[in-house]
Amino acid sequence: MKKLINKPEDVVKEELEGLALAYPDIVKVHFEPNFVYRADAPVKGQVAIVSGGGSGHEPMHGGLVGVGMLSAACPGQVFTSPTPDQMLEATKMVDGGAGVLHIVKNYTGDVMNFEMAADMARDEGIKVASILIDDDAAVKDSLWTAGRRGVGATVLAEKICGAAAEKGYSLEKVADLCRKVNINSRSMGMALTSCTTPMAGKPTFDLPEDEMEVGVGIHGEPGRKRMKLQTADEITEMLALGVIDDPAYTRIVREWDEGQGEWVEIELVDPPFKAGDQVLAFVNNMGGTAAIELPIIYRKLHEICEKKGLKIVRNLIGAYITSLDMQGCSITLLKMDDELLELWDAPVKTIGLRWGM
Amino acid sequence: MKKLINKPEDVVKEELEGLALAYPDIVKVHFEPNFVYRADAPVKGQVAIVSGGGSGHEPMHGGLVGVGMLSAACPGQVFTSPTPDQMLEATKMVDGGAGVLHIVKNYTGDVMNFEMAADMARDEGIKVASILIDDDAAVKDSLWTAGRRGVGATVLAEKICGAAAEKGYSLEKVADLCRKVNINSRSMGMALTSCTTPMAGKPTFDLPEDEMEVGVGIHGEPGRKRMKLQTADEITEMLALGVIDDPAYTRIVREWDEGQGEWVEIELVDPPFKAGDQVLAFVNNMGGTAAIELPIIYRKLHEICEKKGLKIVRNLIGAYITSLDMQGCSITLLKMDDELLELWDAPVKTIGLRWGM
Repeated sequence: MKKLINKPEDVVKEELEGLALAYPDIVKVHFEPNFVYRADAPVKGQVAIVSGGGSGHEPMHGGLVGVGMLSAACPGQVFTSPTPDQMLEATKMVDGGAGVLHIVKNYTGDVMNFEMAADMARDEGIKVASILIDDDAAVKDSLWTAGRRGVGATVLAEKICGAAAEKGYSLEKVADLCRKVNINSRSMGMALTSCTTPMAGKPTFDLPEDEMEVGVGIHGEPGRKRMKLQTADEITEMLALGVIDDPAYTRIVREWDEGQGEWVEIELVDPPFKAGDQVLAFVNNMGGTAAIELPIIYRKLHEICEKKGLKIVRNLIGAYITSLDMQGCSITLLKMDDELLELWDAPVKTIGLRWGM
Repeated sequence: MKKLINKPEDVVKEELEGLALAYPDIVKVHFEPNFVYRADAPVKGQVAIVSGGGSGHEPMHGGLVGVGMLSAACPGQVFTSPTPDQMLEATKMVDGGAGVLHIVKNYTGDVMNFEMAADMARDEGIKVASILIDDDAAVKDSLWTAGRRGVGATVLAEKICGAAAEKGYSLEKVADLCRKVNINSRSMGMALTSCTTPMAGKPTFDLPEDEMEVGVGIHGEPGRKRMKLQTADEITEMLALGVIDDPAYTRIVREWDEGQGEWVEIELVDPPFKAGDQVLAFVNNMGGTAAIELPIIYRKLHEICEKKGLKIVRNLIGAYITSLDMQGCSITLLKMDDELLELWDAPVKTIGLRWGM
């Protein structure tokens, strides 16, 4: 294993120490339990937003904490869910009295632990809403997930909800917005190479020199198919059509019902994309891909969207939700409207995403 | 070779097409000859700044074009110098009447071609100054270079000179500033793995599974020594001390003397760092390193700087001058003063570096 690390078991702790030293104007770091939070938290009277998950996907989530985006992020060990006490302490630290939204990627451990943390926070008098992100159109019921996995849309939801919180939206409205981002977005990824976790010290999965994994998950979970290498244009077409041609997707999710005071099951339907839609196009680097390759993917995606009648009105191209050193990419499309555009364009100052400030 | 590309010979063209589609508010792209330039160029009355070099180091240089940074960038094929006609046409396109600064990394091909382009531009009545960047403290007289190589300081010089141009500094003053950034900065890099160029299709150099190259160049040029893998802390110490303990460095460089109307040789001395200095610390990802690893490097760098009496007053951590998919990092330190701080903090809007706008 070749990595710029000291002991594998110290990777997350030392990464957090580095963030704390490098960015004191943006974030503070709390240790034991570990979480990264806005340097100016809590912001009185403003909805706070907490996310988290296994480490190894940087800059998500710790690098997405700051004004106009997340209030706090709870990093687990690499590819391992954070614990309820991390989420609870982060929630308490950033609550400004207007309630806290948990943005939860759909992995069984994350879902379970965030639900427990939300219950504990409510016991302490904090209003908490939880919204699930499950935008990965590649597969259903994968390793570590019942239903679809939460991937690229998480970054978009965190930006948009963060802007809404900054504008003073209520907890209910920020949660509605998060649900709206989730049902209007879809993603699909692929891997040219496996990633290697520090603790395992060897590739998570085997991928022969002439093959790739299409529909891969961000922890190297199996995708739709293993196949021979193809060109960037062919790969882009597979991912883009997997997203654009995905039919309506219906499932039952659990959300907290503040009125009834209990978790309820609700049916959510993701409407399919249709000609005439305006979209945000997100081309994500899985981590180890050379930066020169991403615009080549974007170029083809732009052509495909045009052919399908989708108008790209915003884009995001870069490494935002990574899988350590995995080579590959993912594509996320989010249907946009005026509200989402205004919130997307609002100023943001985080380690990984920054403009207008 | 595993890459998200179509034909190897189309990589640069298709990357530029992608940039043009993705970022029309920031850059325009000119084809044949190829260069990327500010969407609002030429800016009348303002000094323009042109850089360039082989592709494969993205976001440098095309991703560093925009308000507050470069006016234009000339990308050669991967790891191949751009041609004089690219540089000439870019220079003509962005000249706003106040002259053009060429920022040239010290590689023999780049130096020769930029000198030729500057002479041709002067023949057409454009005032051109050229400043060489040669900040790599690792080795002298490497593959493709006489003297020290130009590496990380290039990014810092482009940001600082871009801000100065935006503030209306004269060509002479912007050139002085660029020279000041160069002599007050030093860098050193290392590789855990080789990069693979699209045309070669195989690793540029062989690096056994348990070895690393310390002092590597950004094209995989040999460094100071090949050695067994070490920890992040040990690697950081080697790079940081290579930079901090580097003695005064004296050499002769060629610059255009506007008064004499000819190229003259001048002696430049890089003063060493000393306790009490304020520095900008730049930890650069060579391309393929997982993002979680960089703060671990920064953490140790911070400790070493403190011990040496250097105060880190600004930092830049991320992939800014890459070597395709190479795993590894480099460290650059730049001695700061009030003028450099003000220019560093000034707003910038490029593809790769953005704040305040």
